[in-house]
Amino acid sequence: MTGALAQASAPAPAASVPRVRTTADIVREAPASAWRRPDPDNVLAMTLPSGIVWIELAPRFAPHHAANIRTLVAQHYFDGLAVIRVQDNFVAQWGDPAAAGDDESKLRPLGAAAAKLQPEFSIADRGLKITRLKDRDVWAPVTGFVDGFPVAADPKTHRAWIAHCYGTIGAGRGDTVDSANGAELYAVIGQSPRGLDLNITPVARVLQGMELLSSLPRGGQNMGFYDKPEQNVRITKVERLADMPEGTRPDVRVFRTDTPQWNEMIESRRNRRDSWYVHKAGAIDLCNITVPVKIAPRAAAN
Amino acid sequence: MTGALAQASAPAPAASVPRVRTTADIVREAPASAWRRPDPDNVLAMTLPSGIVWIELAPRFAPHHAANIRTLVAQHYFDGLAVIRVQDNFVAQWGDPAAAGDDESKLRPLGAAAAKLQPEFSIADRGLKITRLKDRDVWAPVTGFVDGFPVAADPKTHRAWIAHCYGTIGAGRGDTVDSANGAELYAVIGQSPRGLDLNITPVARVLQGMELLSSLPRGGQNMGFYDKPEQNVRITKVERLADMPEGTRPDVRVFRTDTPQWNEMIESRRNRRDSWYVHKAGAIDLCNITVPVKIAPRAAAN
Repeated sequence: MTGALAQASAPAPAASVPRVRTTADIVREAPASAWRRPDPDNVLAMTLPSGIVWIELAPRFAPHHAANIRTLVAQHYFDGLAVIRVQDNFVAQWGDPAAAGDDESKLRPLGAAAAKLQPEFSIADRGLKITRLKDRDVWAPVTGFVDGFPVAADPKTHRAWIAHCYGTIGAGRGDTVDSANGAELYAVIGQSPRGLDLNITPVARVLQGMELLSSLPRGGQNMGFYDKPEQNVRITKVERLADMPEGTRPDVRVFRTDTPQWNEMIESRRNRRDSWYVHKAGAIDLCNITVPVKIAPRAAAN
Repeated sequence: MTGALAQASAPAPAASVPRVRTTADIVREAPASAWRRPDPDNVLAMTLPSGIVWIELAPRFAPHHAANIRTLVAQHYFDGLAVIRVQDNFVAQWGDPAAAGDDESKLRPLGAAAAKLQPEFSIADRGLKITRLKDRDVWAPVTGFVDGFPVAADPKTHRAWIAHCYGTIGAGRGDTVDSANGAELYAVIGQSPRGLDLNITPVARVLQGMELLSSLPRGGQNMGFYDKPEQNVRITKVERLADMPEGTRPDVRVFRTDTPQWNEMIESRRNRRDSWYVHKAGAIDLCNITVPVKIAPRAAAN
């Protein structure tokens, strides 16, 4: 989205040769109506030493987990905790480093947040508007997008769920399905582990800053948990966008997934229009689609 | 594969209760015949400051590229070159940093290696024994494995090709299909970009050490190319296993993909047997399957 790119595409094509718009063209030229501003109550900024990971919660799919996470954030629960696990081609996980130990007295208190939540692995599909992909999927009969989230669904069971794609965030749990509470979270950093779908509660997705998680050093043989406390990557703080001063908070915009521009963008991913591609795939995987996001800093208030 | 794990599985199950073997059990308990030693001519050790990335070339799929790469390695072409591009959720790429510039006189000479090769995007499927997956695939009618490589095929065109999965290595090319020579290589570090299939020549795959590439700092807005020369990650050297002294070279073994143990392992990935999983997916994606590899150092020769 640099000025140079915009300039390169400026010359108008001859009327008789319809211009082929690449994915970048479609996104850049989309009208303001093709973008949405997510509810600032559901946008989190997780500050790591390397920068900010922007996150959007998914209350539609995991209302109780999203509410619990908001409660934790309001209590500054995550501030000073850490990324404690990075397993290659799987997940980066963060939460209370003391959770790996045996001494529960060292755990940071959850305060007003619930310690256990019923699983929210899937929701009823009634009334859910999925912008469907026409492509096959390995794992589910139906796939598509809802508000920017990659979603799978099964018309037979009338259930829908957020798919475990690159950037999907879930709530870690123990052996029992009701052992999660949102205090320990993971983000997918590799090939989509869709086998996790319907086994754990997806609660959010990364809007921007994935590279800050995906490029972290990998942990050891024990499922990627860091072996030594000094390997943990400290979380400076996690804040809600809604809690930042309105005049100065960044302008977060997410490409809508229910517009003609979205459909054209998907088609440009299915059959790449850059001349480099000599073979048109004619297909796209749910988890190969990155929903464009723009996060612009606001000038400090006068 | 630790001793502790082996011990934990030692107690024999009662005859009336067939023991459910997890993926780890199946691999650990597999007989020696379930493993193969790849041809040492085709195994490369790429030493980075952080450790060794082990690579197996795929001469069956890309004979001319594999031969050219072996010629380059024999000339120590890669020694002192660098990883010059890391694009998040896509590829890490290495080769001659001067290739990014305009001054061809600065390029390291290719010596006896060819400067251009005909594309080897796919091969005829005649006589190719693919251990097929029964699962759907988004991109191709047939998928499976050949000698540890993830392969897709189309019975209509009678062509087969290595799929762009996590760890697949390809030969970077310019705008023309014959502009690759194997001197610039990339490894997939994110969600499988299968749209690259049939557009570029896969030449190898990473056997071990993916985390050394996938955890590298990401480059900038220009497709992940590092903006500054000092960001480049120097390649200490690339050697062939065959060129290491026979008595001391590491013992490289790769799980065979044409055995009953392989099939059982795949089934254990399709329907996970760990009790943590409450939902059985009943499916697996070609690119979700990691072929087990064991690389054991040999004691120094007496």
